[in-house]
Amino acid sequence: MKSAKPYIEEHKDRFLNELIDLLKIPSISADSAYKKDVIATAETVKASLEKAGCDAVEICETPGYPIVYGEKIIDKKLPTILVYGHYDVQPPDPLDLWNSPPFEPVIKKTELHPEGAIFARGSCDDKGQMYMHVKALEYMTSTGQLPCNVKFMIEGEEEVGSKSLGWFVERNREKLANDVILISDTGMIAPDVPSITTGLRGLSYVEVEVTGPNRDLHSGLYGGAVANPINVLTKMIASLHDEDNHITIPGFYDAVEELSAEERAKMGEAPFSKEAYLKSIDIDDTYGEAGYTTNERNSIRPTLDVNGIWGGYIGEGAKTVIASKAFAKISMRLVPDQNWETITDLFVKHFESIAPAGVRVKVNPHHGGQAYVTPIDSLGYKAAEKAYEATFGKTPIPQRSGGSIPIVALFEKELKSKTILMGFGLDSDAIHSPNEHFGVWNYLKGIETIPQFYHYFTEMSK
Amino acid sequence: MKSAKPYIEEHKDRFLNELIDLLKIPSISADSAYKKDVIATAETVKASLEKAGCDAVEICETPGYPIVYGEKIIDKKLPTILVYGHYDVQPPDPLDLWNSPPFEPVIKKTELHPEGAIFARGSCDDKGQMYMHVKALEYMTSTGQLPCNVKFMIEGEEEVGSKSLGWFVERNREKLANDVILISDTGMIAPDVPSITTGLRGLSYVEVEVTGPNRDLHSGLYGGAVANPINVLTKMIASLHDEDNHITIPGFYDAVEELSAEERAKMGEAPFSKEAYLKSIDIDDTYGEAGYTTNERNSIRPTLDVNGIWGGYIGEGAKTVIASKAFAKISMRLVPDQNWETITDLFVKHFESIAPAGVRVKVNPHHGGQAYVTPIDSLGYKAAEKAYEATFGKTPIPQRSGGSIPIVALFEKELKSKTILMGFGLDSDAIHSPNEHFGVWNYLKGIETIPQFYHYFTEMSK
Repeated sequence: MKSAKPYIEEHKDRFLNELIDLLKIPSISADSAYKKDVIATAETVKASLEKAGCDAVEICETPGYPIVYGEKIIDKKLPTILVYGHYDVQPPDPLDLWNSPPFEPVIKKTELHPEGAIFARGSCDDKGQMYMHVKALEYMTSTGQLPCNVKFMIEGEEEVGSKSLGWFVERNREKLANDVILISDTGMIAPDVPSITTGLRGLSYVEVEVTGPNRDLHSGLYGGAVANPINVLTKMIASLHDEDNHITIPGFYDAVEELSAEERAKMGEAPFSKEAYLKSIDIDDTYGEAGYTTNERNSIRPTLDVNGIWGGYIGEGAKTVIASKAFAKISMRLVPDQNWETITDLFVKHFESIAPAGVRVKVNPHHGGQAYVTPIDSLGYKAAEKAYEATFGKTPIPQRSGGSIPIVALFEKELKSKTILMGFGLDSDAIHSPNEHFGVWNYLKGIETIPQFYHYFTEMSK
Repeated sequence: MKSAKPYIEEHKDRFLNELIDLLKIPSISADSAYKKDVIATAETVKASLEKAGCDAVEICETPGYPIVYGEKIIDKKLPTILVYGHYDVQPPDPLDLWNSPPFEPVIKKTELHPEGAIFARGSCDDKGQMYMHVKALEYMTSTGQLPCNVKFMIEGEEEVGSKSLGWFVERNREKLANDVILISDTGMIAPDVPSITTGLRGLSYVEVEVTGPNRDLHSGLYGGAVANPINVLTKMIASLHDEDNHITIPGFYDAVEELSAEERAKMGEAPFSKEAYLKSIDIDDTYGEAGYTTNERNSIRPTLDVNGIWGGYIGEGAKTVIASKAFAKISMRLVPDQNWETITDLFVKHFESIAPAGVRVKVNPHHGGQAYVTPIDSLGYKAAEKAYEATFGKTPIPQRSGGSIPIVALFEKELKSKTILMGFGLDSDAIHSPNEHFGVWNYLKGIETIPQFYHYFTEMSK
């Protein structure tokens, strides 16, 4: 496979402008107010796949948002790569923390991105990384170098738990049959430290509701005499961690895969500067489970984080009220071999059990997914390794990520094939945060590296 | 003094309609968006005082919202009663819990108000109870029965801590000189159990802000490795009460007035049905400080309640984010002899001291006021007792209220006179809550009782 560099250089501006157009559509799957935009994004992705050389591109209806499917089958005897990505994005709020509007992409230089980065919601997660694959395909088809068959499956519900993907995959095993699944929805350690994600955490996301009196009460007349749902909620949440920041839910750690001293030592070799880490997010110290390093805490250990909390008077000024209800959104990141449904059940059971008299508690499970670890001796991993070596001149480091792509475990179960996670974003790209961005260099480097994976995977499959 | 009953019967509809017009103006002092309405309400109050027979009514400018002052001096040798009230109201939210719009008053019958109640924000707290005094004055002047001098001081910042009242009182001691201060901004035990409030709790209101990372973070990539401001805030707030629901702030109870067994026994005689109490707010049990009864917990004991909490993603659906900041509004109800400024300092010092590494904490004190207890052997109390006996045919019960009217202590300090709290609302009137209401019977009974206080206070002053 020839280097894509010259082709990319020639079409660079168009590659950027096409992505910018895609980023302008606010495909926020979590907020039904954006339904039209999510659908419009699916249409745009469909058109881009056709333009890149896919045959039989279709918008597949599901119980939720549609899945865009496209394929290019050149020879049934050749291996088939299934590319997965998602066209939906996280909600952009808090809006006031964005330096430029989240859906009006701008390219700005930063310390880590001297060649500029595209600032927009979804630029890295996942529109930008998904679109690298579309452009890589364009390169291979337009230069007659596509070495194998390819299938695309781009969904629109990843940020809300891929609700309909399982439904779709179960009904389309034939259509989706493949030899390896390729996903770019993770990061790499640094531009000069390529890495392949070999582990992902699972997820259980719940919403809790604590109800006290049937109406907001005057805190003077009732204060001290009735359970205050907000005070109670803080007590209940606080009790979910002990002094060592271990999670106190009975049975929570029962299935947790304990890594060997060797494995932990090997992990410790990955370059990490605590100073740079603290500086990058402006905190004076890290915080977490006793007995584990920062890199362990956010990769091989399960967590419980409150993602949102609200109750009572949150407007300007003061209101002396005891709220009738208090709410929180809580997510647990899980590790092999915790089953997310089991953990969700344990949470519900425990949380309801610690509610004091005077309040009623309701737990609404949102969604979840299993953790995943991929072997580094698979054909796919070896091919990815060679691809990075070809374009970075370096052997990539296997890396456990703290994030979750619940569907990876689903794919292995339903499609019986391994997933390779070739991520080109950086942790500092602020995905899920204000000012999300994706380096222009990273974007183009992805487009350059992906064809090499096609090449080596096909070669090594012979 | 003749009974006002016939006059009230004759003018009942007008008395109601005038109050309804006053309730239509959204004088929300906590929200600057309503500034025009707050001012307009002051103008309306001014006009009503002139109509009721006051001389020299004026709108006195302050650093904040104006104070409406009016007086009727018939003979400098006669005693002078200073009437205090407020024309501002609490914010009405949560709006969706109101059965009718908060500023479109409607009269509806309820179980406790068979003659109907006026549903509107401010109907009881305090426009309705304040307006009883205006109509009582109208009765006395228009029937030539005003037995003494009267002064009115109606402010517009009571719901935001009476910020400017101290400033005004200090500068107008002469003008405000009086023999007794009369306020209707509290409740009574039941329509057939008249009561006079003899104690009020003090207040310290603060807003806290916990800041972690400089931006919202992806809870997968950072979860477990950095302090989550919401998790930390819940831990900090939870730690402010121990297992017995005692407040853990060092020094918090040092100055608390401990009542004697006799006093507590006397309090215990006030009629109280726990069953009815639980039913009225639909909870299965009470909750509070170990070793005290419900009536003690909400009157003679200090409290700490979270009035509002917010942080992270609180929109529809799920967002896996670690928020940069989390906030809470916290109020402490205080008892004699806790100094609210001392307590605020203790809170700030303690709250900052329990912040873990990885977050920064800011505490913004809002406002506060001292607790107050009035003697039941004063001339004013005795006159009020006789007034209730004349109109209710029963001796009123002295009652400690859990609420706060911070300015009562201020008045005693600056004006050297006692305050009599003749409240005609019921705890169930939902002040500070959705569907606030004030019984038509209570409103008219107040107008009937107040002139009797004027009469007996003048008689007993001879």
